[in-house]
Amino acid sequence: MRRFIVLGHRAITSSGFSLNDLCGSAGRLDVLIRCINSTFFLSHDMRRDIELYLVLQGEPDAPKTISLRGDELKYLNPDERSTGALVRNALMKKMDTADNTEIRSTPGIYISRDGFKDTLEKLSKISTLVYLKEDGGSFDSINPSKDLTFILSDDKNMSEEEESEISKFHPETISLGTISYHSDHCITIVLWNLDNKIM
Amino acid sequence: MRRFIVLGHRAITSSGFSLNDLCGSAGRLDVLIRCINSTFFLSHDMRRDIELYLVLQGEPDAPKTISLRGDELKYLNPDERSTGALVRNALMKKMDTADNTEIRSTPGIYISRDGFKDTLEKLSKISTLVYLKEDGGSFDSINPSKDLTFILSDDKNMSEEEESEISKFHPETISLGTISYHSDHCITIVLWNLDNKIM
Repeated sequence: MRRFIVLGHRAITSSGFSLNDLCGSAGRLDVLIRCINSTFFLSHDMRRDIELYLVLQGEPDAPKTISLRGDELKYLNPDERSTGALVRNALMKKMDTADNTEIRSTPGIYISRDGFKDTLEKLSKISTLVYLKEDGGSFDSINPSKDLTFILSDDKNMSEEEESEISKFHPETISLGTISYHSDHCITIVLWNLDNKIM
Repeated sequence: MRRFIVLGHRAITSSGFSLNDLCGSAGRLDVLIRCINSTFFLSHDMRRDIELYLVLQGEPDAPKTISLRGDELKYLNPDERSTGALVRNALMKKMDTADNTEIRSTPGIYISRDGFKDTLEKLSKISTLVYLKEDGGSFDSINPSKDLTFILSDDKNMSEEEESEISKFHPETISLGTISYHSDHCITIVLWNLDNKIM
């Protein structure tokens, strides 16, 4: 199983955004939506043995985590707008602040009140965490036969507090080279490397 | 210099499409628009020494080729909708059927009446053509210091006629492995390999 966590630093936590302005009106939710595309789509096929956790830290009701599970996903198309509509459906779900039960929105898409720390904690128990970091180690250090969860940020770097939170889980760190890429491109590159077992 | 040609088999050749339905109303123009994102965007930066040629073969006025030049590009954002609007602006340009002068739409975006063959011919004179093909050779066969133009298809495979057209130019062929990826993901993978000189 492969998993990705992407931290959306100011990604909106309500459904009050326009599908016509995913960049401007939704705290760069567009970045996270492109990560959905790169996690699941193959040519005329979908990756099934994979999960994506989008941690939303923006206004007005943070935190929330939307998780997508490849083995259950339906109704997902590769374009940003229709994927944005599925994410908006999840954000329409009424959530009790006291109760952190995960709620199913559409097949394969769930929403919870988990924050970044909760998500790291949950996934560290069932997989090896790998933090993508510019000064990280080489791909060769990763064992592709392990159950791996890769940690990425959106268009903003992790803060000192977030770095410190991540480090508590002692993740492995890897680097994709000296150039810094968009989050969705990082996911494509990591998956291609895993597909071809260079890692 | 790196270049990519992407063949849009049924990509619309007029501006008569909705930005709200790039998948359905525009002959899968969404596939080509995602290729623009993966060709040019780096994290908080853009690739400048690169060009992208989108060959549109759909109704009602084929062929047309939209070319994008990294060293001149302005007003490009990573989201599909705003990129779709720039492509639509180019398709609004009035073009004489007899005259094949390239017309500038916005900075770095040009449109011409070139078809697939014209584009292959033009770029074969100034660069080494490389065809991404599932039964192609290994990355190692490519010399990254050369001026390279990679040839890709959209969501449809090349037809026999198109394969035959490509083969006249005796391109090198490379494969990204046994899995078949979306066109924009292929561009990300190729560029990452070139960045890291594995090719």
